[in-house]
Order: sequence, then C-alpha cells, then structure tokens
Amino acid sequence: MEKIKMILDCDTGHDDAIALMLAAKNPSIDLLGVTVVAGNQILEKTLRNTLNVCQHLGIDVPVYGGMSGPMVRDQVVADDVHGESGLDGPVFGELKLEAQKEHAVHYLIRTLMESDGDITLVPVGPLSNIGMAMRLEPAIVKKIKRIVLMGGAYGLGNTTAAAEFNIYCDPEAAHIVFTSGVPVVMMGLDLTNTALADMQVIERMEAIGNKAGKLFGDIMRFTFHSQAVNGLSAGPVHDVTAVAYLIAPEIYNTKDMHVDIELNRGFCYGRTVCDYNDRFGLDKNVTVGLSLDLPKFWDIVENTLRIYD
Amino acid sequence: MEKIKMILDCDTGHDDAIALMLAAKNPSIDLLGVTVVAGNQILEKTLRNTLNVCQHLGIDVPVYGGMSGPMVRDQVVADDVHGESGLDGPVFGELKLEAQKEHAVHYLIRTLMESDGDITLVPVGPLSNIGMAMRLEPAIVKKIKRIVLMGGAYGLGNTTAAAEFNIYCDPEAAHIVFTSGVPVVMMGLDLTNTALADMQVIERMEAIGNKAGKLFGDIMRFTFHSQAVNGLSAGPVHDVTAVAYLIAPEIYNTKDMHVDIELNRGFCYGRTVCDYNDRFGLDKNVTVGLSLDLPKFWDIVENTLRIYD
Amino acid sequence: MEKIKMILDCDTGHDDAIALMLAAKNPSIDLLGVTVVAGNQILEKTLRNTLNVCQHLGIDVPVYGGMSGPMVRDQVVADDVHGESGLDGPVFGELKLEAQKEHAVHYLIRTLMESDGDITLVPVGPLSNIGMAMRLEPAIVKKIKRIVLMGGAYGLGNTTAAAEFNIYCDPEAAHIVFTSGVPVVMMGLDLTNTALADMQVIERMEAIGNKAGKLFGDIMRFTFHSQAVNGLSAGPVHDVTAVAYLIAPEIYNTKDMHVDIELNRGFCYGRTVCDYNDRFGLDKNVTVGLSLDLPKFWDIVENTLRIYD
Amino acid sequence: MEKIKMILDCDTGHDDAIALMLAAKNPSIDLLGVTVVAGNQILEKTLRNTLNVCQHLGIDVPVYGGMSGPMVRDQVVADDVHGESGLDGPVFGELKLEAQKEHAVHYLIRTLMESDGDITLVPVGPLSNIGMAMRLEPAIVKKIKRIVLMGGAYGLGNTTAAAEFNIYCDPEAAHIVFTSGVPVVMMGLDLTNTALADMQVIERMEAIGNKAGKLFGDIMRFTFHSQAVNGLSAGPVHDVTAVAYLIAPEIYNTKDMHVDIELNRGFCYGRTVCDYNDRFGLDKNVTVGLSLDLPKFWDIVENTLRIYD
Repeated sequence: MEKIKMILDCDTGHDDAIALMLAAKNPSIDLLGVTVVAGNQILEKTLRNTLNVCQHLGIDVPVYGGMSGPMVRDQVVADDVHGESGLDGPVFGELKLEAQKEHAVHYLIRTLMESDGDITLVPVGPLSNIGMAMRLEPAIVKKIKRIVLMGGAYGLGNTTAAAEFNIYCDPEAAHIVFTSGVPVVMMGLDLTNTALADMQVIERMEAIGNKAGKLFGDIMRFTFHSQAVNGLSAGPVHDVTAVAYLIAPEIYNTKDMHVDIELNRGFCYGRTVCDYNDRFGLDKNVTVGLSLDLPKFWDIVENTLRIYD
Repeated sequence: MEKIKMILDCDTGHDDAIALMLAAKNPSIDLLGVTVVAGNQILEKTLRNTLNVCQHLGIDVPVYGGMSGPMVRDQVVADDVHGESGLDGPVFGELKLEAQKEHAVHYLIRTLMESDGDITLVPVGPLSNIGMAMRLEPAIVKKIKRIVLMGGAYGLGNTTAAAEFNIYCDPEAAHIVFTSGVPVVMMGLDLTNTALADMQVIERMEAIGNKAGKLFGDIMRFTFHSQAVNGLSAGPVHDVTAVAYLIAPEIYNTKDMHVDIELNRGFCYGRTVCDYNDRFGLDKNVTVGLSLDLPKFWDIVENTLRIYD
Repeated sequence: MEKIKMILDCDTGHDDAIALMLAAKNPSIDLLGVTVVAGNQILEKTLRNTLNVCQHLGIDVPVYGGMSGPMVRDQVVADDVHGESGLDGPVFGELKLEAQKEHAVHYLIRTLMESDGDITLVPVGPLSNIGMAMRLEPAIVKKIKRIVLMGGAYGLGNTTAAAEFNIYCDPEAAHIVFTSGVPVVMMGLDLTNTALADMQVIERMEAIGNKAGKLFGDIMRFTFHSQAVNGLSAGPVHDVTAVAYLIAPEIYNTKDMHVDIELNRGFCYGRTVCDYNDRFGLDKNVTVGLSLDLPKFWDIVENTLRIYD
Repeated sequence: MEKIKMILDCDTGHDDAIALMLAAKNPSIDLLGVTVVAGNQILEKTLRNTLNVCQHLGIDVPVYGGMSGPMVRDQVVADDVHGESGLDGPVFGELKLEAQKEHAVHYLIRTLMESDGDITLVPVGPLSNIGMAMRLEPAIVKKIKRIVLMGGAYGLGNTTAAAEFNIYCDPEAAHIVFTSGVPVVMMGLDLTNTALADMQVIERMEAIGNKAGKLFGDIMRFTFHSQAVNGLSAGPVHDVTAVAYLIAPEIYNTKDMHVDIELNRGFCYGRTVCDYNDRFGLDKNVTVGLSLDLPKFWDIVENTLRIYD
C-alpha cells in the first residue's frame, strides 16, 4: 500500500502535539512537512512547541513557520485552554532544533506546485497559511488532493456560542478554503468533543513505557485542568481525529453537506453554517464527521505511539 | 391547586392543533384565549384551522385573529410541511364558529393590563403578535408572568441551516421577546425533535375512541408524509411540549443560558444564538429545554385527550 | 384649489415645531391631526412640546401620543441637539391642553381606513408610528396617498458616519415604510442641511411681530448653540422642508431612485442606501430631494407665520 | 530637493495609465517600481496594459505582476468602464517588454524591508497586493512612509450605491490597509469626480505634440464613451490625483477623519465609512481629499507630459 503524502498545518497546542505524533510515525502516512500558524498561542510559541515535540521524540520532518496572525480580522489566542506557553504540562529540554528558513506559505506553494497532485493537507489550526497560499498562488488549488481539517461545528461553538476556535480565529481564510473547490473533510466539535482521553486512556498510553506514551500522558493530564470550559468530562484530542481519518476513514461516520462560513460580524461571525438536512439544495462541498469508533481510534493511536523508540 | 392561566398563541398547524387540545382540557390549565398568527400558513388559514379544531371538539374558548405577517421581514410560510390548508389531513364539517372581532394584539394588551400579572403566554408560532403587543403597549411586559414558547434551536435549524421556522418567520419579534426581561422558557428543536409520535403512539391515542383521539390520529398520520424533510423517523409534536411544560415541568431537563437572535441578514438570520457553555458570562435570559421524559409526556397527552367527550 | 389633507407625525423638537406652525396655518394644507413619537426626546417630552406649541399659538388640531420607542432596536434620543426638554429655548405658560386618548397608531389606522385615500402623511421623526400602523393594519397601505418625510441622506449621516438621526432611531420602521409601495418623498440631510436659518432669517421672522414670529426666533436662536456638531454655520430647519414640499413642490429639485435601508448592525446600520446613479436598475421607490429654492422657501414660511394672530 | 521614492500599484486602466505617465517623469518623484493587480480587468490584461504604456513611452521602470484576484471575496471587474482590453482606445505596437519574474507581493516586501522607511506607496487599484504583503510580512507596516491611494468615497459610490470600485473589489484588503497604522491619504470619488478632463483639457494635452500628449488624448477620448454611467459630464482622471498629491499637496483641500470599511455583506459592503463630522471621537486614521485646485493640477500634468520625448 502506498503511503498517503500529507502536510500537517498546526498551531501546537496539546492535541496538535498528539496529532503530530500520530502523523510522524504511522505507517500509512508519509509526513512531508509541518507548517505552523498562530492560533492556540502566538506564532513564536506554537513554532517553539512544534520544534520541542519533534526534538523530544526525534521526529525528523522539516518544520516551517507561517502566518503570525489571521488574514483579515484581529488576532485571537486560546491561552485559557493551552496555558501561557501554548503547551503547558510537559517539560522539554533545551531547544536546539530549528525551523526551516522558508515561510510556510511559500513551502506550501512550492511543494504543491512541484507535486503530482497527490498531497493531502491536514490543517488543525486556523486556516491562515492555506488561505494565504491559495490567494498568493491560485494554481495550487488544483494540486491539492484533499483537505482534512479539524475545525467548525454544526452544533455549538466552543469560542463563541456560534463558532469553533480554529474557524473563529480566521473566518475569512476558512471561507477561502471551504469555497475553493478542493474536497474538504471537516472534523468539527460534534465529533471531536467525543474523542475524549479519559484517565483510562491516559494510563494506557503511559503504560506503553516509551517517550511518546509519556508525552501523551504529560499533555493530556494537563488538558484535564482546562477542559471544563467546554463542559466536557475529560480532555478531547480534537486534532488527532483529522490525522486518524487518513489512516482509517472506515471508522468514521460522515455526511456530505453544503457548508458556508458566516462572515458578517454579528453573533455568528466565524460559524460553519452546515446545511445538514440539505434545505437549500446547494453543492455538498464538505464531508462532515458525525461520529467515530472510539475504541478503534485509540487502538490506532496506541499502535502508532508504540513505534517510537 | 390553582389552575395556570394561559393564553395560547398559535399558527395552527398540525402540532398546534394538538397543543390546543392539550391546553383546552388539561385540569392544570385555565385557557383564557387563543390568539392566532400567520406562520405555518397565511392568517386566513391558520385562523380557520384553529376555529375548525375548536368547533370539532367543542372547545369553548375565545379565538382572536392577529398579525397576518411578520413585524419587519418578508413573509415566509411552511406549506411544504403543513400542506395547502395548513392542516391537511383531518376533514372538518362546515365552519360556523367565528373569531372574536378584537385583534389579537389588542386582546393581549387588554387582558394582560387587566390581569394581576398571573398570565403565562404560550406562543407556538412566529412571535409577531407578542412582539407587536410589547411595542404597542410596553407596560404589558411587567404583567406577563412567563413566556413558554416553541421555537429556536441550539443545534441545527429546520428552515435554514441555522434557523428554526418560528423564529425565522419573525426574527425581529423574537428579538423583542427574548430581550424583554420576561422569563422565557424555550422548547427548541433539540428537544422537540425527540417528541415523536410514532405509529404506536398514534394507535394508542386513536384507541381512546373519542373525537379527540381520532383527530390526533388524523393529524399525526398526515405528519408522517411531511416529516422526512427534517430527517426524522416519525412526526414530532413540537408545540405540544410547550403546553406540557406548564403541566409537568418536572419531566423536562432544562438549562439556563443567554440567548440572542441573529438579526444580520446573512446565513444565520433568525438563529437563536444560545450560549450553552456560558462563554460570555451574560445574563441567563432563557431556560432552554434539553430533553423530556417521553413516556410521561405521552401519558399526559393521553389522559387529557380522554377528558374530551 | 382643494386643500391637501395631511397628518403630521413628529417628535417635537425645534424644527418640528416650525414644521407644525407651517402645516397648521398654510392655506394649501388641511392639517387633520398631529401624531407624536419618541425621537428627539422621550415621548413624554415630545408630546408635551407639541402640546405647548399648539396651546401657545392657538393651533386647534387633535394631538395623539404614539410610540414611546422604536419597533425593534434599543432607543436613541438626541438630547445633545435639542436639550433636556427636547425643545430648549422658548418658555411656555402652564400646559392645559391635553392629548387625545386614542393612541397615534390607532388614530392613523382609523383615519386612513375611513378616508378616500386622499391623505398625505408627513413624518418628520422616527417612523415608528407609521411602521407599526402598517403592520397592525396592512390595509392602510393602499389608503395612503403619499408619504413626504424628513430623514436619511445619500451623503453623510448626522448621527453616525453613515446614518441620519430619524432613520437611525428606527431603521426597521423605515424599512417598512420605504418598501411599502406607498410613494415616498424623502427630504434628506443633503437638502435639509442647506435650509439654514441664519441670523438674517431669524430677525426677519421676528420682525413679523406676532407670537409665531417670536416663537420662530426663540426656537432658532437656541439651535445656534447646537448646530456645530454637524459642522453647519447656522441652524437647519430640516423638518420644515417636508411640509413646504406639499405647498410648493415646484421649488424643489428632486430625483427618483431606489432606496433601501441597511439593517445589518455594522457601521452602516440605519443608512438610507440611495442608488443615485441607478447602478442596479431596481424600482425607483423614492423621490429624493436634492436642493430647494431657499428664498422662495423662506417666503412661504414668512407668509404662513404672518397668518397667526 | 530630494525626490519622493514611490511605488505605483495599479490595475491599468485609463486613468491608471495617466497616473503612470505622471509618476514616471515628474521631477519630484523617484518611481522605484510598478506593481500590477487585477481590478479594472483581469490581471493578464492590466499587466499587458501597463507594459504597453511603458514600452510605448519608453518608461524604464520594473513592472511586477501581482494578485490576480481579491483576498477573500469573489472577483469583480469593470469591463463596462474600461472595455474588453481594460484600456480600450489607444492602439499599441507589438508588446516586447516583459514583466519581472518576481511576484508583486514579494517585490513590495523585499523592497520595503531593504528600505530606510522612506517609500510611499500609491495604490490606485484594489488593495490586494498591499493587503497581502502586510499579512505575509507584518514588519513592512513600519517601513511604509505613507500610503496615498485612490479609492472610496464619503458620498455616493460608483459601483454599488454605497461603494467605490477599488474598495468594493477587495474590501478586506482595504480594511487591512486602513487599519494598519500607516498614515493613509485617500483620494475618493468626492474629489476625483471633479478631476474631469473635458475636451479643452484633452486638446491642450494633445497640443503638446509628443507621444505622451497623444496617448493622453487617445485614452481620455475613449473615456467620454464610458463616463455617463456615473452621471459625469466628462472623463475623470481619478488615479492621477493620488500621484499629483505627492507632487503638490498644497493644491489639495483635505480633512483628517476616522475611516472604516464596511465588511458586512449587505447593501453597504465595501463602503468607506467616513466619520467626516467626528461623531465617534475615534482616531483620525485617514486624510481624506475634499477638493483640489484643478487649473494647477492640469498644469502639473501638462508640464510632466512635456518632459516625454
């Protein structure tokens, strides 16, 4: 079986870190590069967090810093959820690993244009890098095989009453991505809020006994302190569900529907307006995740973490 | 126990008819009057439907015609759901019963102003009558004990991707009601879509053997033909849940939260923006229904229908 | 020549007072009644001001109190322009004149429905009374001959950067009126800001030597203190231009165009969006005042004031 | 006197061509480069038009192709005004001149970052290039001396009732530029619609007798065919006023005010909301052109055209 070529676009972040761990070692995936964006914290911190995880686990993939803020709106960060560093919890050694000099937006454009159209983008933060790349070089749109993203919700938001954090951070970039014509798979809160790492899961990963399992534990134990704001009983690993979808789409229940982004700056700014029941008969531009087989999902995570030395 | 004085404000409609049947005879309720509004169909038809139900079942309550359209926006009707008459299905005899001459808005103002502040309003259609009354005579606001309404959703809409029918029909009136300061209880689609009359329920009500049970059956059998548009497996009796809440609030699971109406005319126009997780710390102006004990609910309905001759 | 039957709808107010003086005695006009609305100040004050002017000048026309606030939005008043009383400047004797018991909205509906369709409405405040009447009794729309209003602007606003005061106070009511199908003539700021009563005009009216000329002076001398906020060099008599248009339309330069009201709640909420250059080819629903022959306008005002004892 | 270093950002276009002619040879200006954007026509055409003008007149300045569309919204072009080619009217020889390989956005970033902060940007088309550059490299914001742009209006729009073409083409980019903190001078329609090249002006420029005067004539004679849509009696040279402001700011009457861009997608999408009368007391982020001394303006144009061989 051929590996799925993918680029991870993240704002590391607790669940981003685990998404990265999964993407870097899972045998089904060929992780070409990691692009970083501001989101859970400012770019300096999300980039540092990404490099820390790579260095700590010996992940040998080029990392590119990208957009330090959204395309149009004022910047929002989530320090209430992810702490001062953006990845509070684990302790890392002195950081020696460096990001590539190339800007993430340029890396995306160059890599996609040189590709055979076989690269999947997996953005798990605000869509600023990808939105900018699509506008700076519109020709990349036809080169992207698919975009599997974490973001949005057809139910409740987690940042405003209407909007999910990643989309709310850059609604205009999300609008560009969702209306680009590239096939989009959306793992929204409706699904990701069910991907909860309870204490049993945490202990199971720690029991693997390697650095990756230990890091999983350090990360998700912290998330217990910040999960209450969304009314959840354990820590969700939102971003991991997007990566796992590439590995095992068969464990997901999805539905194709038309999705628009609300750009008017009222109560619903940044909402992913999902026409779940097809009231408008518009093109079904997005495959939306409804639910996943959680036991199989954790098996995939565990099996991949075991690959780390 | 003192009866709860209530006025039913409806746009009859299938589930409205059953809500009326429940309100008119339940021993806990003193139904003072019925005000009618355009909604499921034009006013002429919703008024005729209301009178037909009253005449057919010998319900002796004054009926008042009200607003023939929304306060501000263009009119929307739901003939796809309720058919050409707005209450397709049952067959009624020649209509002799007449509506009162007084306009529903004036009846509401007069009755509330003459009251001791002990009247509950139960609107189960667009909020045009109540919004207009509140603006024409602001003093009624302090005279309304409570408003228990059917409308809105914190999840998906049923008319647009974002909005539920009753609120979408008159978002500006909804804004007036929700921000009026009157305690509001909202039975939204999240709850009402679970109040399904499946064939077992229908046969149970028909088995009562009286006119009311027969009418329930005629109405809900029709609803089977129109329920698919919302992806439901049987006919929901949305409006009935608002009336039943007055009778047995203890069978409902609710949550207090801040709710605003989106008035910007984009994708989310008419959405009830529900701050379920209290992200903004605003006043909790609405008690939102989350779920109900369905067996007990049907018991209440059955027991009330049995009271009819 | 037959007199033009008109109803003045006002929120008195300095320029409203002069508009009333013109409407009450000009030989071309048959002033049927005066309806009052909140606007420049709260209803209690605008009603009191209207009655004060009537009593002071012996104007014998029924006065009706109406809407104490806008149809949908939160209330705005203009105490920065019109002072604490809403008509600061002139001193009136003890008020004995009383308003009619009937609500202005009901008066409008009753009078229009009983009419032969020959009544012109002249609203010079927020459009709340007329918007409410049109929604409470849609049949009046076909009974209104014409609406000649003061409000809006195709250029700059005077309350926000985009919106004029009367329209901004109740944009939803304005939307109802402008889209009602009734022929609308709009005297907006573009024209009314040129109808300036400079000191020469004030002295000319005072020189008439009667109560009306004296009241004109007392009113417009005060306006000198509040006009700077709009960058004007003398006091504009906005509302008077609407009444004078009935008397002498030939002194006005106008243009028919499509006008919509912006209802989205951003920077432009309440703007009269005037398609001056017909970019959209939509129906020309409004005749917009561009300029007026000011010397002839002041002649009309002077000649009418002279009629007062 | 030191020359003013400037970069012209244009979507050539008739008036753009004349702006380029002025910027390229006026002794006060050191034209570093010309960046091109889609606007009056698609990028391929605006770039071709720009190169045609440069080749035809021997203008030796590097030309960079940039954004082929707006940052967020769908593309709009103005073929109704500028014709099929975007510069209908003049006839050019075979085009041999080529654009630089570097993307305009990268040229802007590189040039500004290498500068001493002494470069003025003069955008006379949609602001896509500059908005993108500011987001891709936020550090350029502090390196821009000033932005003198053609766009917007405090009065009527020319594309919608509310919006001017350049801003309407890319409101989100305009929002970025106007709120960037860089001093902005805005030549809007209120001023530019008065910069009319009537037949007397055209004949005067043609009488110079060189290629530049001839080109001016060929261009502006065409504009006579397309000016009626804005209700103008001769062809306006909108873009030229922005360049001339660098040369002779003393011939302009301006006013500092707060300006925002309406981003809600209603009737006013893309309007430059100008707080002319300072109703909100916000920071005065924009210097808005009110009027110019037209005779002196044409002297500057003529004197510069004479410099061409």
